[in-house]
Amino acid sequence: MKIAIYGYGNLGRGVEAAASQNKDITLTGVFTRRAPESIASVSGVPVYAAENVRDHRADIDVLIICCGSATDLPQLTPALAAQFNVVDSFDTHARIPAHHAAVDAAAKGSGHIALIAAGWDPGLFSISRLYAAAVLPEGKDYTFWGKGVSQGHSEAIRHIPGVLDARSYTIPLQDAMDRVRAGEMPELKPGEKHRRACYVAVEEEADRGAIAAAIQAMPNYFAGYDTSVAFVSPEELRKEHGRLPHGGSVIRTGITGAGHSQRIEFALELASNPEFTASVLVAGARAIHRMAARGVRGCVTMFDIPPADLISLSGEELRATLL
Amino acid sequence: MKIAIYGYGNLGRGVEAAASQNKDITLTGVFTRRAPESIASVSGVPVYAAENVRDHRADIDVLIICCGSATDLPQLTPALAAQFNVVDSFDTHARIPAHHAAVDAAAKGSGHIALIAAGWDPGLFSISRLYAAAVLPEGKDYTFWGKGVSQGHSEAIRHIPGVLDARSYTIPLQDAMDRVRAGEMPELKPGEKHRRACYVAVEEEADRGAIAAAIQAMPNYFAGYDTSVAFVSPEELRKEHGRLPHGGSVIRTGITGAGHSQRIEFALELASNPEFTASVLVAGARAIHRMAARGVRGCVTMFDIPPADLISLSGEELRATLL
Repeated sequence: MKIAIYGYGNLGRGVEAAASQNKDITLTGVFTRRAPESIASVSGVPVYAAENVRDHRADIDVLIICCGSATDLPQLTPALAAQFNVVDSFDTHARIPAHHAAVDAAAKGSGHIALIAAGWDPGLFSISRLYAAAVLPEGKDYTFWGKGVSQGHSEAIRHIPGVLDARSYTIPLQDAMDRVRAGEMPELKPGEKHRRACYVAVEEEADRGAIAAAIQAMPNYFAGYDTSVAFVSPEELRKEHGRLPHGGSVIRTGITGAGHSQRIEFALELASNPEFTASVLVAGARAIHRMAARGVRGCVTMFDIPPADLISLSGEELRATLL
Repeated sequence: MKIAIYGYGNLGRGVEAAASQNKDITLTGVFTRRAPESIASVSGVPVYAAENVRDHRADIDVLIICCGSATDLPQLTPALAAQFNVVDSFDTHARIPAHHAAVDAAAKGSGHIALIAAGWDPGLFSISRLYAAAVLPEGKDYTFWGKGVSQGHSEAIRHIPGVLDARSYTIPLQDAMDRVRAGEMPELKPGEKHRRACYVAVEEEADRGAIAAAIQAMPNYFAGYDTSVAFVSPEELRKEHGRLPHGGSVIRTGITGAGHSQRIEFALELASNPEFTASVLVAGARAIHRMAARGVRGCVTMFDIPPADLISLSGEELRATLL
């Protein structure tokens, strides 16, 4: 099967790397909204102007859209689903129902299939929540993130005057995880599950105290969390905090029968968040290509994909080796 | 939807308890090969003779077969799939392809759907191996079991002359798990992943040393493993080792892009192995009832079930709450 990448940042380069690990998948092109002649792909695959993507339809079974959820995907995914089978990693949880509706209408109207919200959260974490809830209906689930770089929180700090660059880590609180694992099913506010550690490079004359206070008071991002702020040089920030690790865990505990406590846990530890997300997108592309061949149309999520469709092995091979 | 239980041991009673936790599911009967008048169900649901199960077809959307894999299920599941939509927990990994073929022929011949090998291993562990392998094709997975009671190993000890009763625990080796988690991808023989701890009650005049030696030398069960044997009284065995806890973890590490190490881990800690397995069977029954309504026929495994089919929530509810 032939895939192409739309949007060539960290995530797009991750898809390029993931495609090379899957022998049944050929990457036929990268589409960029920047000047294509200014960009060389890592693998040497051709780089084209995004506006010409329609001209390449014969070479694209599935188009993987590697753009941001805030403003790009709400426009791009429905527009591209009118012309292609598409995959995106839309991750604004609260807006997923609206995004699903828009993409579903576009894909059904054009006879295509679209997979939205693929990745790990939403994505593998969502599936884990679903399996656990289906098996333990009398229970409670908790999602912990980190330790990892939160790109949205890092970006929020960069908007503060005097800040040159910043990295914000989300760190789960061990005590909260221990209580959840023990089956206590506690009620936990967001700030009781995680703390945040920020590394910030500022202009020389900046008021460090005022910047730290501004970070710690920022609503929706840092207020309500135990937030540490350390000031470092731009060089140290690049050198010590230039990677994008992440991870976390989904834990559900529940009760069966005469009070037996049962625990289900799914955990990720990722050296590269964008490369892992990209690996999920590529497996998702394989799945919707197969589902399209079976006549499935419209917008789906990973909840709708039979696991077997994600992997290159046949049903016989799967039953003999992985079951 | 209406389900019934075929076979009323630990697993069957677990299904009875799980059904009571799912409001969309009604348990209509228990079928036993023992004398039905000698058995009272825990919930008060009627107990019938297994040989009369066909007479109750109108009250059974899905029949959950709660019998053993060694000799019962290879006969029973194909026979019952010729009359009902069925679920089983067939767990002899090496014989799954043959079981699948037999059940598939029976179910397709009669226009039914059958889910085999549901539970946690095979079952949720299998799905975890599949998702992890699909996302990290350049990697290696490991399954650790325990700490938990291995019923097959306990039974093997009971066959030794002089043994009254026994319990064998499978315990994962922490050092092996640590190496796997660190991404070393070691080659590990079975005895390098687990040890076994046996608690054995024997006749008064029994030769304890000979029994311990016989256990430790038993091929396919204990030979090749670090196996401890402790002799306890029948009372202590019942009191201290009368429960059926189990669990374990599936861990896959892999490499993406320019050498980034990624880890996926799925773990269970179960106070009751049969009740948890039963909870998976009930969710599986819901799924195949829906798949049957969509026209799916033949034998499936959990690899073939879209996760959304396992849970009572609608697609809209799932996208709004769990995605």
